[in-house]
Amino acid sequence: MNKGLFISFEGGEGSGKTTQINRLAEKLTSRKYNVITTREPGGTPEAEKIRDLLVQRTGGNWNPMAECLLLYAARAMHIEQVIWPALEKGKIVISDRFFDSTFAYQGYGREFPLEYIKALNDLVIGNFKPDITFILDLSPDKGLARSTRRLAAENLNVRQTEDRFENLDLDFHARLRQGFLEIAQKEPSRCQVIDAAQDVDAIATKIEELVMRKLK
Amino acid sequence: MNKGLFISFEGGEGSGKTTQINRLAEKLTSRKYNVITTREPGGTPEAEKIRDLLVQRTGGNWNPMAECLLLYAARAMHIEQVIWPALEKGKIVISDRFFDSTFAYQGYGREFPLEYIKALNDLVIGNFKPDITFILDLSPDKGLARSTRRLAAENLNVRQTEDRFENLDLDFHARLRQGFLEIAQKEPSRCQVIDAAQDVDAIATKIEELVMRKLK
Repeated sequence: MNKGLFISFEGGEGSGKTTQINRLAEKLTSRKYNVITTREPGGTPEAEKIRDLLVQRTGGNWNPMAECLLLYAARAMHIEQVIWPALEKGKIVISDRFFDSTFAYQGYGREFPLEYIKALNDLVIGNFKPDITFILDLSPDKGLARSTRRLAAENLNVRQTEDRFENLDLDFHARLRQGFLEIAQKEPSRCQVIDAAQDVDAIATKIEELVMRKLK
Repeated sequence: MNKGLFISFEGGEGSGKTTQINRLAEKLTSRKYNVITTREPGGTPEAEKIRDLLVQRTGGNWNPMAECLLLYAARAMHIEQVIWPALEKGKIVISDRFFDSTFAYQGYGREFPLEYIKALNDLVIGNFKPDITFILDLSPDKGLARSTRRLAAENLNVRQTEDRFENLDLDFHARLRQGFLEIAQKEPSRCQVIDAAQDVDAIATKIEELVMRKLK
């Protein structure tokens, strides 16, 4: 393998991204691949500061345009400092969210014009994109129920944690899901929609299979 | 007067922007105009957080693309929450720096492509621009000497203060000055270049005269 592979995971709250990312990273590592996992917004010290501005209750009340600009500032740093260098060394990069989340959350969710996000994306990162994107698809009610159970299990409530992007109403989550599905429809060769209501092991096996096929 | 007036002040370190902004604001207020003064990056609580990321030593080591995106995120908030509402109420808005500083510092100074900044500017703020821009022009050696004297007078040194954009070498400052002069040349009806080596009172009188002409 002389060039790396860039994999992103997308989906709403409670869709199981973190679990599946960890499973995939372990599996690939056990097969002697060199893997790094990262996340957006974030992934570098600077980009994590932008994350704080966006997800913490005290971070500010940003308009959607500023939100997109902040996300792309973080992404520009993340690509330059983490993603590209790793890919150039032939590593597999697995990112918890990438640009599809900006289209889904700010575009479909907050209803900020998709053309604007597209123009910004082209300006900042050009044609760069993941080799494979897994979209973990789950109905909003199931996702939020899972998410609430998890917070309860961790003895936390939403106010005590980061105020996630996801801490929004059901209508928003329905638009978000619709957004991810439309994105997948537009780019079927990059995006794999995975039914996230399935058994965790079944999902992990399916994802591993698709990645291994790409690596061969 | 049924619509406001938007005035920006530009120039390098030690060019005397703050003094002249205060003089102009006092003069206009004494003539019963409704004036607000503001600054960039900053001017709103959110935008001031972005300022901290950009100007403080601990704020991060941003690449020029991320820097431009952060500046425009701050600017989008500043325009929406401060500048437009004030102009709509017929106020005079005086801003210490606006978009010309991004072209001068990130473009001419850091040598990030001007076309990129132009495209970003068009995307984020369209045709919006100041009605008058005063460019306080001073040779870099004089500006830095003034700036150093001021820091000494305040019993501060550069390390104790914000790490200003301006804390850079003489070559950078020469490119910056050249940048401001080229900007002024391209937009002579908006930009007034003022020789900042002149006496403070003479400069204040000249600026007041130009603003009063615009208000009539």
